[in-house]
Amino acid sequence: MTSYHDITDALSGLLSPGKVTADREILEAYARDETSDLSAMPDILVRAESVEDVRAVMEFCNTHGLPVIPRGAGTGVTGGAVPVRGGVVLSLEKMNRIIEIDRENMVAVVEPGAITRDIQDAARAEGLMYPPDPASLDSCSIGGNVAENAGGPRAVRYGTTRDYVLGLEFVLADGSVITTGGKFVKNATGYNLSGILIGSEGTLAVVTKIVLRLVPAPLFTFDMLLPFPSLVEAMNVVYGILLNRVVPATIEFMERDAIDLAAKFLEREMPFPDAGAHLLIQVDGNHEQAVFNDLDAIGKLSCADPDTIIIAQSPEQRERLWKARRSIRDAIKKFYPVFLAEDCVVPRSRIPEFMSDLKNYLETKDLRSVMFGHAGDGNVHIDVLKGDMEYEAWTQGLPELKREIYRRAIALGGTITGEHGIGFIRKDYLSLALSRDEIELLKRIKKAFDPKGILNPGKIF
Amino acid sequence: MTSYHDITDALSGLLSPGKVTADREILEAYARDETSDLSAMPDILVRAESVEDVRAVMEFCNTHGLPVIPRGAGTGVTGGAVPVRGGVVLSLEKMNRIIEIDRENMVAVVEPGAITRDIQDAARAEGLMYPPDPASLDSCSIGGNVAENAGGPRAVRYGTTRDYVLGLEFVLADGSVITTGGKFVKNATGYNLSGILIGSEGTLAVVTKIVLRLVPAPLFTFDMLLPFPSLVEAMNVVYGILLNRVVPATIEFMERDAIDLAAKFLEREMPFPDAGAHLLIQVDGNHEQAVFNDLDAIGKLSCADPDTIIIAQSPEQRERLWKARRSIRDAIKKFYPVFLAEDCVVPRSRIPEFMSDLKNYLETKDLRSVMFGHAGDGNVHIDVLKGDMEYEAWTQGLPELKREIYRRAIALGGTITGEHGIGFIRKDYLSLALSRDEIELLKRIKKAFDPKGILNPGKIF
Repeated sequence: MTSYHDITDALSGLLSPGKVTADREILEAYARDETSDLSAMPDILVRAESVEDVRAVMEFCNTHGLPVIPRGAGTGVTGGAVPVRGGVVLSLEKMNRIIEIDRENMVAVVEPGAITRDIQDAARAEGLMYPPDPASLDSCSIGGNVAENAGGPRAVRYGTTRDYVLGLEFVLADGSVITTGGKFVKNATGYNLSGILIGSEGTLAVVTKIVLRLVPAPLFTFDMLLPFPSLVEAMNVVYGILLNRVVPATIEFMERDAIDLAAKFLEREMPFPDAGAHLLIQVDGNHEQAVFNDLDAIGKLSCADPDTIIIAQSPEQRERLWKARRSIRDAIKKFYPVFLAEDCVVPRSRIPEFMSDLKNYLETKDLRSVMFGHAGDGNVHIDVLKGDMEYEAWTQGLPELKREIYRRAIALGGTITGEHGIGFIRKDYLSLALSRDEIELLKRIKKAFDPKGILNPGKIF
Repeated sequence: MTSYHDITDALSGLLSPGKVTADREILEAYARDETSDLSAMPDILVRAESVEDVRAVMEFCNTHGLPVIPRGAGTGVTGGAVPVRGGVVLSLEKMNRIIEIDRENMVAVVEPGAITRDIQDAARAEGLMYPPDPASLDSCSIGGNVAENAGGPRAVRYGTTRDYVLGLEFVLADGSVITTGGKFVKNATGYNLSGILIGSEGTLAVVTKIVLRLVPAPLFTFDMLLPFPSLVEAMNVVYGILLNRVVPATIEFMERDAIDLAAKFLEREMPFPDAGAHLLIQVDGNHEQAVFNDLDAIGKLSCADPDTIIIAQSPEQRERLWKARRSIRDAIKKFYPVFLAEDCVVPRSRIPEFMSDLKNYLETKDLRSVMFGHAGDGNVHIDVLKGDMEYEAWTQGLPELKREIYRRAIALGGTITGEHGIGFIRKDYLSLALSRDEIELLKRIKKAFDPKGILNPGKIF
């Protein structure tokens, strides 16, 4: 094959018509994901409709040494789906069926392009719940969730994507189709391939089917918003809650700057405008009195005046509270279109130290930041805003800025990223978190799955 | 090195005295684990006391191409710790410290030789719980639990070992020491190495430190025993319970034969001696009334006469109920010392079909069996007894017997083993469950970790 024109023709011949295109107007939409300030044009787009399509594309591209970039809904924020070296973008968006909700075994069988919210809704219709809830759940796909091990606020109580994947069907670089696991929780038959595939950012295999564990949907869910003078005081209450045997579904924190931005974006006043920090806590369960007891315990532990606690009981009230939390990122995008979005993780006892140290550092650089995230699991979202800084100065300063953020998280026993992955934009920093021996091991594992290195090249390493 | 005598001397020189021995009387105890009818003498025993010891042994053995068999407490039942090809048994039994119970972050940091029960007790003393509860929890070590991804009855609600490992320190075949994860739940920094190491049966690396997630210990725990005319009726109640949003901590079933054997072994009468099957259900929670409601719902769903339900409230009553369940294996060992212990898994909706089909098959072979296990998660323990059969006929029949059992589990959407692993005794059957492409992939992964193949050779593959 000498040109991408020939390759397009060959792929079109292998798959049924309409699944392969090199039309630059269509390709444009596949040049980026939701990563700030990053794009690269693919050479060819394949929209697979079946595992057989995926198999054929992989076998062909492996034979000819062509890069393949698997793509879900393109909602990633570290450039995982961006074809930084060109090649074939393999979109799974049309493989979006929810094949089965099996009530008796409490599992869902889905295709990778299924939207996470649609899976949640389908489960809910059967009295079941799929707990992981990344902020982008209305638009992200479950295949992307698997590729990134997506989490979300509910991880405190319910864990991340990893805790719900019981089985996978996937295609290796050479086109072999492998299934692992199934509709059962326990499995000790050979190595746990799901364990290494989840979070591998499309570099090891293309997932074509997913068996998900579901849980009974809780009958009662309440959300409460609590104001605190400062983040330190809010976090002390978080430790108290968990040590008092209350495990809320979510414990989100938002610092003052995040609240102000959300208010400006939504053009409405926020409750408790003078607070230094808010906690947004969700409690759920099947026994109403037990849930009330938890709410009561949280109120007491927070030492708050009962008038300064908002409890949402209706879906509308709940939506209002969560809308503010979920619109922080959109507010940043609108008012500060160039920004750095980090999602470091530290042991949750170190969150206040991490944040105050980081704030001090950012102030010395005259940089404004917005911090919010998951107090219960130590995952801190840090959005640093370019603001009025010159673009060139900003770009030149980014490497040092990232390094200083990651270094601080690692020094406190944490690591670079909790949910978003390494992708393209963080790969130069992997050696801050992982030893040379570990990176060499990861590369050998990559080679075991993809000897020619055609799958999502230029990512992670 | 020409002889194991020289090797012993060289290893003794590398480690401090007393850690290395080739004394055959001592070695005897390391020739077997709890696998029926299997033993093989090691050439050398090293009892490591630190990660540095492990590092030195691995580097030396890798250089000289010597087999290393990592060993925890030796409670495995598939020959995972048996040195079938001789070599160096590397015992972690002395690395048994519980380094830290960190209340604020709710984690335990432990060495691999720590006994699972001791970790549970240490957690409980801080108001926390380590949920996985393999039947051997009084004697098995956490390192072995990690190697096998041990489960136990509580997996229905709480999952298996995998769901609690947040971080690992491990030593590769070449002596590199790698740490992965830490005191945090979310991590998207490079591939999830814990994911593939857990359940790898000592073939990929030697784990030297483990960071475990703990959960708040529930305040209320009740156990109930329910009789049913048959397993099918018992299982229908299990589905009803789970679909009614009650998620007990355990749902164990015992068929009549298992109950009779336990009664004989314990020399006491069992309740409901005429029942075809028992369910042993544990319900826990922090709100007494919510737990009572669950008990009540289970009682109603079982359609049982309230007089035929036993509810244990005191630790003594609870111990009495569980003693029967936990002594089934010991009873079998005592009365039928030669037996085949399988632990297939099927989707839980297929348990009755799987068991009745298997019973029919075993009857045609004049073989008696005892079945019990985890109704909530589809993991069925099948112990087939040699009984009066001639030893030679028994041994000759084993391959076909195993194949028939595994084939049935796989045909129903299940797999060979849920908890015990492949180890040595099942490796010839791996290709029943996994495709040739998958086995080739597993072998490439093995090579990525252990290029010379010195770690636990002859296992899994």
